[in-house]
Amino acid sequence: MLRRTFATNLRRLRSERGLSQEALADAAGLDRTYISALEREVYSASLDTIEKLADVLGIPGFEMLRD
Amino acid sequence: MLRRTFATNLRRLRSERGLSQEALADAAGLDRTYISALEREVYSASLDTIEKLADVLGIPGFEMLRD
Repeated sequence: MLRRTFATNLRRLRSERGLSQEALADAAGLDRTYISALEREVYSASLDTIEKLADVLGIPGFEMLRD
Repeated sequence: MLRRTFATNLRRLRSERGLSQEALADAAGLDRTYISALEREVYSASLDTIEKLADVLGIPGFEMLRD
């Protein structure tokens, strides 16, 4: 389940960088509630969203989908 | 640009397996015109779409986003 892998990576990478959902959302130009929903596997993020978040987190996009 | 990487990988992997856009679309439960649009970077595929295509192509999802 790619949504689960992405959600797990998103939460881990965000926490490792000491970022709140709000701070990550602001930096990526997204809404905090959307970040929360992604971390709960509610939505299926698109390539553009994955790229925005990966850029803020400082990792290549494909790493967001890797177990 | 993650859309470009994904489009390039999708076309290469599909061709390597001798699949037409139609055959890949049918196997993944998607529309042929959507496959064509993804290969032209028109749309930003979602995690669920990436997972369906990766499953048909027999590779892990993250490899679809890797240069």
